Amino acid sequence: MEPGSRGAAPAGVSVSAVLPAGGSGERLGGATPKQFCAVQGRPLVSYAVRAMERVSWISDIIVVVSPEYIETMKTIIEKYNHRRVTVVEGGITRHRSIFNGLKVFAENGFSSHLLQKPEVVIIHDAVRPFVEEDIISKVVMAAKEHGAAGAIRPLVSTVVASAADGCLDHSLERARYRASEMPQAFLFDIIYEAYQQCTDYDLDYGTECLHLALKYCKTNAKLVEGTADLWKVTYKGDLYAAESIIKENLSQQVCVITNEKETLAQVGFLLPESLKSQIKVEAISVSLSKNDSRLQNIISGQCYNFVYVNEKRCALQETQELVDMLEKSNIPLLCPVVLISVLLDISENNSVSIGMEDLTTIKKFARETKKKNILVYGLLIQYK
Amino acid sequence: MEPGSRGAAPAGVSVSAVLPAGGSGERLGGATPKQFCAVQGRPLVSYAVRAMERVSWISDIIVVVSPEYIETMKTIIEKYNHRRVTVVEGGITRHRSIFNGLKVFAENGFSSHLLQKPEVVIIHDAVRPFVEEDIISKVVMAAKEHGAAGAIRPLVSTVVASAADGCLDHSLERARYRASEMPQAFLFDIIYEAYQQCTDYDLDYGTECLHLALKYCKTNAKLVEGTADLWKVTYKGDLYAAESIIKENLSQQVCVITNEKETLAQVGFLLPESLKSQIKVEAISVSLSKNDSRLQNIISGQCYNFVYVNEKRCALQETQELVDMLEKSNIPLLCPVVLISVLLDISENNSVSIGMEDLTTIKKFARETKKKNILVYGLLIQYK
Repeated sequence: MEPGSRGAAPAGVSVSAVLPAGGSGERLGGATPKQFCAVQGRPLVSYAVRAMERVSWISDIIVVVSPEYIETMKTIIEKYNHRRVTVVEGGITRHRSIFNGLKVFAENGFSSHLLQKPEVVIIHDAVRPFVEEDIISKVVMAAKEHGAAGAIRPLVSTVVASAADGCLDHSLERARYRASEMPQAFLFDIIYEAYQQCTDYDLDYGTECLHLALKYCKTNAKLVEGTADLWKVTYKGDLYAAESIIKENLSQQVCVITNEKETLAQVGFLLPESLKSQIKVEAISVSLSKNDSRLQNIISGQCYNFVYVNEKRCALQETQELVDMLEKSNIPLLCPVVLISVLLDISENNSVSIGMEDLTTIKKFARETKKKNILVYGLLIQYK
Repeated sequence: MEPGSRGAAPAGVSVSAVLPAGGSGERLGGATPKQFCAVQGRPLVSYAVRAMERVSWISDIIVVVSPEYIETMKTIIEKYNHRRVTVVEGGITRHRSIFNGLKVFAENGFSSHLLQKPEVVIIHDAVRPFVEEDIISKVVMAAKEHGAAGAIRPLVSTVVASAADGCLDHSLERARYRASEMPQAFLFDIIYEAYQQCTDYDLDYGTECLHLALKYCKTNAKLVEGTADLWKVTYKGDLYAAESIIKENLSQQVCVITNEKETLAQVGFLLPESLKSQIKVEAISVSLSKNDSRLQNIISGQCYNFVYVNEKRCALQETQELVDMLEKSNIPLLCPVVLISVLLDISENNSVSIGMEDLTTIKKFARETKKKNILVYGLLIQYK
């Protein structure tokens, strides 16, 4: 945990998250539960964890898995360098698993130590990989105000009720209803009380946390309109869709890295500004020699395009360091990584011929890195 | 129309289909309505038409499109060699479009001639590309018995009703409700009467045909449990999923072709028998020189794997004919087509060396076809 690196929670609320990941994935029709299915070589649950982890104001992330997957989950956390995650053993139903996840904040004996109880707890599915900070924040703020909140979407199909004979009893008027999706958020005390109060029948057959908050705590959750990418991976086709969306995102994200010197940081600021209308840009200013967790997070977030703005003098050495980091991350095993090394020459007496030498060196270096599936390109900028 | 080539309708019912394809595809977020979006190079609507067309006992297929897409639709029908299809101009809402489609069977002036009124009419979405004959047949039989029927699926998400303040009013008990999907089917007279009776409000704001049959004809539709592949392409992720499913199907289907001679037909029978546990096999016995519509249908159904069992003597010429057909179909433009040419030598005095000559000829031929993205392989079987 690195509390220092986190931004402020919305309106100073303390927030943690519980991710039930104990499902059996029957509907997918495979042996592996869907949250552990690999999408672009990485288990689905890891995308959901990452989505939470990226939000700096979420303190703890509790992943609840069935006993036989605890070791798998721990391996995933280690492999993808997930932080702030606690793995908890799930119950036999979704509600029992969520309840176990909540107990970590309230009772001893559910994890190695009692975690600090958050004011608001987010509940999110391990099989919804694409949740963005914006909707998480909206749901959290609404929960703070109303006690409970959840993302909703328009219904895709009309909903019908069947009679005992298997015939149509009535159709629901589509405009009046919504699909209840995730994330949801609750004042911790409300949802925990609801789980403590609720019957075994609810724990065994219910699925919906908003319903429990209403039934046992008279809390009418605020419904927050979500985006299409909140959808839940349920069937095989959804796995394909997730894969395609991830692939599309890969090519649409670039990380611009500069070191901490002033001139470089300036270029490193101008470049993302001019790129951001066309592509998702993350710009960071770091010293590569320090093991910076932001850069590690971006890399483990499967960013495949990097622009590294560096000083001519130490260009190759630093580019080498970045290549080493990328190689260690294992991401080039899946797709080629593109690294554009921008050599900024701000010396008084810069000359084109000297610059060309540097580019030749980079070119030679690039031939080597290509074998590792890292495509390095050199770009020389002379600037007086 | 080739009435001779059709199988028997279930229990002798006459059946036609209406495919509303007039939607604007707003939810997909693109300029092209989703039914006209290309999936593996072919518009989505063409897959839905093909799914109906494959069912030999469906007489007419009415595709209802908005006025500005009538020419596009006609081009699609020509390009993909669709049969039994009539294009009809849609109305401004889904219900008005379906009503227009039905009028083709009941009123003059909606198509070039009045089509024969079917006993049962299927209504299916143009954006559900994977419907199989089995579910169509079940829905049609249920409609024949109950007057109306529709495919349903379990709800993926809990359905909630919101109060006026945007807060949760109540959640529906998931087990009691189902998502209403397509295909649906109706006794023609029932659904046509329902449309004639229904109000402008229904025509403008309703979406559900089962509801109209209940409201205006007191017909409680039979609900038929459908398969996961009935899902509707609604969002961009669904287009990706459709593409992946189509790609997967491509590699899992093989067409075994033999000509009509007895010995060949025998081999052509044994081969599919031994393959069918591993792959979807269509086996046909045709003379390539006659322009056989079954083979044309299989090719235009985007089958990419062919085994052609032929006599040694005329092997190359016939393989050439098949290659010509495949080339004309344009399907090799999308993906490589694999054609295994099995040369069956049943002469008394066959010898390996002569067989090898034939294979050399095929090999040379294969080098040429490879440029057209058709991969020809030769296989010699000597059989005494």
